[in-house]
Amino acid sequence: MGAVPAWPPQSTPRLFVDDLLQPGERRIEGPAAHYLLSVMRLKSGDPVKLFDDRTGEWLAVVRAAGKRDLTVELTERLHGREAAPDLWLCAAPLKKGRIDWVAEKACELGVARLQPVLTRRAVVDKLNLDRLRAHMVEAAEQCGRTALPELTEPVKLPALLRDWPAERALFFADETGGEPAAAAMRARSGPAAVLIGPEGGFDDAEREAIRALPQAVGIGLGPRILRADTAAAAAVSIWMIVAGDW
Amino acid sequence: MGAVPAWPPQSTPRLFVDDLLQPGERRIEGPAAHYLLSVMRLKSGDPVKLFDDRTGEWLAVVRAAGKRDLTVELTERLHGREAAPDLWLCAAPLKKGRIDWVAEKACELGVARLQPVLTRRAVVDKLNLDRLRAHMVEAAEQCGRTALPELTEPVKLPALLRDWPAERALFFADETGGEPAAAAMRARSGPAAVLIGPEGGFDDAEREAIRALPQAVGIGLGPRILRADTAAAAAVSIWMIVAGDW
Repeated sequence: MGAVPAWPPQSTPRLFVDDLLQPGERRIEGPAAHYLLSVMRLKSGDPVKLFDDRTGEWLAVVRAAGKRDLTVELTERLHGREAAPDLWLCAAPLKKGRIDWVAEKACELGVARLQPVLTRRAVVDKLNLDRLRAHMVEAAEQCGRTALPELTEPVKLPALLRDWPAERALFFADETGGEPAAAAMRARSGPAAVLIGPEGGFDDAEREAIRALPQAVGIGLGPRILRADTAAAAAVSIWMIVAGDW
Repeated sequence: MGAVPAWPPQSTPRLFVDDLLQPGERRIEGPAAHYLLSVMRLKSGDPVKLFDDRTGEWLAVVRAAGKRDLTVELTERLHGREAAPDLWLCAAPLKKGRIDWVAEKACELGVARLQPVLTRRAVVDKLNLDRLRAHMVEAAEQCGRTALPELTEPVKLPALLRDWPAERALFFADETGGEPAAAAMRARSGPAAVLIGPEGGFDDAEREAIRALPQAVGIGLGPRILRADTAAAAAVSIWMIVAGDW
């Protein structure tokens, strides 16, 4: 079946550029240039895909490859910016890189916003937002997203609940039991969020405060005790299946 | 509401013992003793939960705490060994600790067996099964499982397909598209497995070989390209919701 080879090939590198993209030539330098030149070994004439979280994804071709920088020409806009499913992930900081993993998975699985939440039992209360964002950018580059999840400043749980949008369902993983996740999510369409506590879980007062929110729905994620990062990935996956774009 | 404090408390350490458990005293030494004495700081009279993947979970009480070992008395069997949902996860080795993470999540999410599968595009072809098992043991200790997932020897994909059980559905993540995962899994009850390829995916010949298996069902996991570890966690979570014990 002598099929015409696909252009650009599947292996075409994909790069986020934090700058409005438009047709024509642009210079790429710094770490991005190092990645394209030294890791991906791009040469003049090679294709590269760029996206900017604003205009979408563009096809570009390398016009000049130097030692430390390269010039590419944007020739065609391949896609507009995607409309991400309207799901927020509100998650407490976690230790030992688990929160980095949550940021990566949140992006791949398709959340629109990652909202760090500070709770009483949090083992970690400092967050490196730049590092979290870097993990989401890398995930977006590899999973084909044209919209980065919004990464918001950490807020304390009481403030999160006080300012919670009236029309947004808040599905929180309730270790003490809750509605089966899929049924609870299927029953409530529209904007939603998943709230995941820290390693030690919410304390009783926090759980009461969450339950007192009319938009809050406690969900169960099976008979086993899931780590916070596991619960986040499972709950987001289930929402994507029953209410998202999967 | 002056409730009687729960015994044993929720914070009771939980430990896997690779040896048949029975009522009465037993000595604990080595890393397990170090964990209980130096990390959890157990003293005489403190409770500890033990499980053996054979008889279930037992309540024990520390009778004598030394410097390097301790003696506990098993007083009561709290649970028999659980019946894990009949789901296998067949996964290609992954680099950079991602396969360790898959083993941990597979255990927490509740799979009955983790079957490493060797494929053509695998970046990694060596697997440290002892390390994988250690990750599953640690996950089982913290998630309350009384049955460890079975960890089988790696097999090459052709052998896996050749010897595939007639009655077991094989849901494979198909980047080229497939049935929506939840519907595909809901439509096929009974024993099942999720098959996840390596970072580079299956090659065309492998995908054809999988499709040729009558028990195989290609599933889609949404519009974004998921990393192999993400796809594994998502597919297992979805199966647990629609066909498992969640």
